[in-house]
Amino acid sequence: MSAPAAPPPEQMAVVLTESAADKLLPFATLVSGALALGFRVDVFASYWGLMAFRKSPPASTSTVSPGHGEDGARLEKALTAPKAPSWKAILEMAKSIGELHIYACSQSMEVLGLSKTDLDPLVDGVTGVATFIDRTRSANVTYFI
Amino acid sequence: MSAPAAPPPEQMAVVLTESAADKLLPFATLVSGALALGFRVDVFASYWGLMAFRKSPPASTSTVSPGHGEDGARLEKALTAPKAPSWKAILEMAKSIGELHIYACSQSMEVLGLSKTDLDPLVDGVTGVATFIDRTRSANVTYFI
Amino acid sequence: MSAPAAPPPEQMAVVLTESAADKLLPFATLVSGALALGFRVDVFASYWGLMAFRKSPPASTSTVSPGHGEDGARLEKALTAPKAPSWKAILEMAKSIGELHIYACSQSMEVLGLSKTDLDPLVDGVTGVATFIDRTRSANVTYFI
Repeated sequence: MSAPAAPPPEQMAVVLTESAADKLLPFATLVSGALALGFRVDVFASYWGLMAFRKSPPASTSTVSPGHGEDGARLEKALTAPKAPSWKAILEMAKSIGELHIYACSQSMEVLGLSKTDLDPLVDGVTGVATFIDRTRSANVTYFI
Repeated sequence: MSAPAAPPPEQMAVVLTESAADKLLPFATLVSGALALGFRVDVFASYWGLMAFRKSPPASTSTVSPGHGEDGARLEKALTAPKAPSWKAILEMAKSIGELHIYACSQSMEVLGLSKTDLDPLVDGVTGVATFIDRTRSANVTYFI
Repeated sequence: MSAPAAPPPEQMAVVLTESAADKLLPFATLVSGALALGFRVDVFASYWGLMAFRKSPPASTSTVSPGHGEDGARLEKALTAPKAPSWKAILEMAKSIGELHIYACSQSMEVLGLSKTDLDPLVDGVTGVATFIDRTRSANVTYFI
């Protein structure tokens, strides 16, 4: 008699459409925390969220979301300080400890004129939105960032 | 003996508060993908998300979220090209293939001074937030956009 | 024989990263509606979402998200009118009717150089993201704002 199958891990689904550091940091820490708790995490990177994974983002991309005046300037400074947390480093560390899947949105790829080789190796593949929803239809936690 | 009732369809709940194309496109494709998989989708359009459904949005409304510099200008150009995907067209197509309900947030209607006749026929009705939460308390997937 | 334990209440989890009124109002009304329906609500305030709970937010913080042109100016005017709804008042009222927990993101506290005494008494405590995910892993509804 075979042993009963282990239950599937809890799952977090994230649709990422932002590229400013004040969104990418909460994103990376959420993903990291979920993986540390044993969740499987599936990310669908769309539009600006996909741009964030380009190998060479142009310098014109702002670090902090606009519209925050002096506070924004202060946060920008804090986030570019040498010891500031890096969302990419948090994500790379997270990927080494658990099951993290990052998919590029195929519609965004086409509109933005990007190909798989333009993207960071953290991105596992290109997929359509229906495939993503199908993979995450039983997710315990779902966030659109 | 009557046949057992069919299980209710899986459900996606979306609170929409954005009006830029780089949010409305992921929104429309998510809704469309979920309907294609047989989900029922309930949308609560609030503030800018409600403005997006006005019959005549003023030209001053930007197509792309601010703060993206040259990349933003490039995306704006891609999204206004003749063959670019239109979020409204995607949504209209989606509505014809499945159960899509779009509700206008009553608080936003009051603050913005809008009446039902100002809104696109895609909007099914005006409702309060508690009614929306009640209708989506068993949703499988929940996104705030 | 003891009575069977009551089932745990339904739960809403919210990660809040925004500070503009056009996000805080939908946030506060969602929380308020969920509490009215008997949900327990857990909020994780991160970056700008944490800034929104400072005791003295500087005047430079804009009320309405940028990029909305004339519509933005009109909404700003509507939201600063004497009888306009206040997100903070809605939240305080909501806290008095149900189980609302608001946690400050510890990473954000450090990056922003804030301490607990800088924050509104509505904030119950400071916590890490893994603790928040652990507390909300069974949430029925999850929103990232």
